[in-house]
Amino acid sequence: MIKHTTSLRVRYKETDQMGVVYYSNYLVWFEVARAELLRNIGRTYREIEEEMGLRMMVLEAECRYKSPARYDDLLDIACSVTKLGNSSITFTYRVTRDLDILAEAETTHVFTDITGKPKRMPQILREVLS
Amino acid sequence: MIKHTTSLRVRYKETDQMGVVYYSNYLVWFEVARAELLRNIGRTYREIEEEMGLRMMVLEAECRYKSPARYDDLLDIACSVTKLGNSSITFTYRVTRDLDILAEAETTHVFTDITGKPKRMPQILREVLS
Amino acid sequence: MIKHTTSLRVRYKETDQMGVVYYSNYLVWFEVARAELLRNIGRTYREIEEEMGLRMMVLEAECRYKSPARYDDLLDIACSVTKLGNSSITFTYRVTRDLDILAEAETTHVFTDITGKPKRMPQILREVLS
Amino acid sequence: MIKHTTSLRVRYKETDQMGVVYYSNYLVWFEVARAELLRNIGRTYREIEEEMGLRMMVLEAECRYKSPARYDDLLDIACSVTKLGNSSITFTYRVTRDLDILAEAETTHVFTDITGKPKRMPQILREVLS
Repeated sequence: MIKHTTSLRVRYKETDQMGVVYYSNYLVWFEVARAELLRNIGRTYREIEEEMGLRMMVLEAECRYKSPARYDDLLDIACSVTKLGNSSITFTYRVTRDLDILAEAETTHVFTDITGKPKRMPQILREVLS
Repeated sequence: MIKHTTSLRVRYKETDQMGVVYYSNYLVWFEVARAELLRNIGRTYREIEEEMGLRMMVLEAECRYKSPARYDDLLDIACSVTKLGNSSITFTYRVTRDLDILAEAETTHVFTDITGKPKRMPQILREVLS
Repeated sequence: MIKHTTSLRVRYKETDQMGVVYYSNYLVWFEVARAELLRNIGRTYREIEEEMGLRMMVLEAECRYKSPARYDDLLDIACSVTKLGNSSITFTYRVTRDLDILAEAETTHVFTDITGKPKRMPQILREVLS
Repeated sequence: MIKHTTSLRVRYKETDQMGVVYYSNYLVWFEVARAELLRNIGRTYREIEEEMGLRMMVLEAECRYKSPARYDDLLDIACSVTKLGNSSITFTYRVTRDLDILAEAETTHVFTDITGKPKRMPQILREVLS
């Protein structure tokens, strides 16, 4: 299935007094990785919101932390689409620094209209995602 | 003029690897202090947005950091309205931990409609704020 | 087992342009809930770090989002200790607004020394946690 | 004096329910811009901390918001060193999106040792910064 890797550098803001990246920041990187995966296949999440009138509401997020990320680390966030339902989508992530796996994760989202009502994924999107 | 003090406890998330609170978080505390000042005079910022259809867009923020805040510190954020224009408002803040002054700041905002166009402050709000 | 409920109010900073709370912020609230659970049984996480020389590194976090939290909502974060290993601990969380369940989650942590090496949970802590 | 421009893309996390970027996030971008300015002249902030044993504590931050940044915007953060004291340094920032100026800001920092005691800026750093 569709896969894309995004590189990003750890910001000072993302560290905590343990000297490593605070755990919630990984979920922000996953958002960036999803957006870049979409951009890479010729779509943008902005377009999904503005032109298709849809939102990708998160249903579930799970992350397994293997080894801490640190300030100024250059990380790779590999992101794949691993499940496509009628109105739902699951992404899988792997965070690496060189050869080290720092974290593995999944998030599942549902397509909704602006009021939060679930909607079928548009055909045009389904095609590029599968 | 109107003044209100809000207490809050420093979250681990707000620290960085220097072992102190990262500087942008003070601006978040100021937002909390503004909201609590409004609540204290019988209004809420939610109401300003939802019922009055207004936004308080920030024009300027300035913060002078005197002494670092640390994890689990119980802080007081004193917030006062120090200037009221036709459509603008300035708040002044002082962050203290017991007798220590940790930071002093000001933010200036303009009332706008949902499209960002400046609007006069509603009379009902002006009265409680002055 | 040990259980404690912490109340907190949603900050404007925690919302996103979908008009609801951004998903990573729930993990920050869980951190606050863990800290308050510890404080409630007479310990603080600051003490675990400063006096016991330990860290509670996160191994895994999972959150299921049921219904969105919104700006200014007053939320309850119920937090329980649901598993105690030799050096690991699992917390379970339920986020509610009045009678609505907004999210359910678990996080698992390992006690380490300052270098990240796993350590047995101190007996003094095990006693109050079980 | 030294100047460097860093490009970054607005994250969804950085928006709020007003549909624009929340004001504290600009300060995070300034941190990224400072780090990239240093990297561009052959130094890193990580090195200043780890090898020189120094910290750049913020003394003051001021930001004037001209026009809102939005989700997925590609921004340029121009950063210059505009003042160099014995142990202090001032950076000036301009945030632009194409030809639009979104914000202008300054931050002033003091070099300290790990305990927070002010230290003279190392000669090796002063040379590359001026």
